[in-house]
Amino acid sequence: MSERSKVVKFSDYRWQDVPLEDYKPGATHFKDVTRQTLLGEGSGEEVLHFVTRYFEIQPGGYSTLERHEHPHSVVVLRGRGSVLLGDEAYDLRPYDCVYCAPRSAHQFRAASDQPLGFLCIVDRIRDRPEVFDRASGEWITRG
Amino acid sequence: MSERSKVVKFSDYRWQDVPLEDYKPGATHFKDVTRQTLLGEGSGEEVLHFVTRYFEIQPGGYSTLERHEHPHSVVVLRGRGSVLLGDEAYDLRPYDCVYCAPRSAHQFRAASDQPLGFLCIVDRIRDRPEVFDRASGEWITRG
Repeated sequence: MSERSKVVKFSDYRWQDVPLEDYKPGATHFKDVTRQTLLGEGSGEEVLHFVTRYFEIQPGGYSTLERHEHPHSVVVLRGRGSVLLGDEAYDLRPYDCVYCAPRSAHQFRAASDQPLGFLCIVDRIRDRPEVFDRASGEWITRG
Repeated sequence: MSERSKVVKFSDYRWQDVPLEDYKPGATHFKDVTRQTLLGEGSGEEVLHFVTRYFEIQPGGYSTLERHEHPHSVVVLRGRGSVLLGDEAYDLRPYDCVYCAPRSAHQFRAASDQPLGFLCIVDRIRDRPEVFDRASGEWITRG
């Protein structure tokens, strides 16, 4: 069916027939993050060379501190928070955009009292991230 | 500079240092549409294989009725309107998503009393659209 054009309706930060998934099944080093894949992974949608995902971080939560070759294009939809890009943190509000360049370390954080929801668009075919492990102080790759 | 990671701040449906452009310079068959290219066309951003654009259609306006090989991934950000996909029209509200499959004819319209603003993500390298010309009833390609 999704080989055809379609509209995916939104309601309260969920999208019709889109499952709410774990951010990174099996991974650690993050807190209170969910993922919804809006477009680009349905049957027939392989003609999209990129995937449009929506991530939401609950208040006080954060994504992994990670780096990889593939760049990110991010548009904030909801709430307040910040992004760490290299050594610098930037406040984020709705509709701010973030470009994560290749190999740039990055981490998203929600504000303490608000969620942070954002679209993150990536290449369909992409390398796996390295995640910074605070305990060892090393970048690690998951299998 | 944009070979590096960056944040592009939003304010009142404009983005910092992003020019407000004509929708399709030289084209006809549309009404009251503007374009802002948020990410993917800056120097160094060629590593993004896709371009993230924001289109805004003023109340009563509409985009071209067009078709092409490259698919679209669309997320509505603002206002009310509709999209024609093939022969069927669908209402649109903020955060609704639209997938335009290859060769699918499509046209966006703003409501009569509200604008319609949406992100539209496309491949960096893509074919040119054919536009439907009402006068002749034919699909035409612009040079």
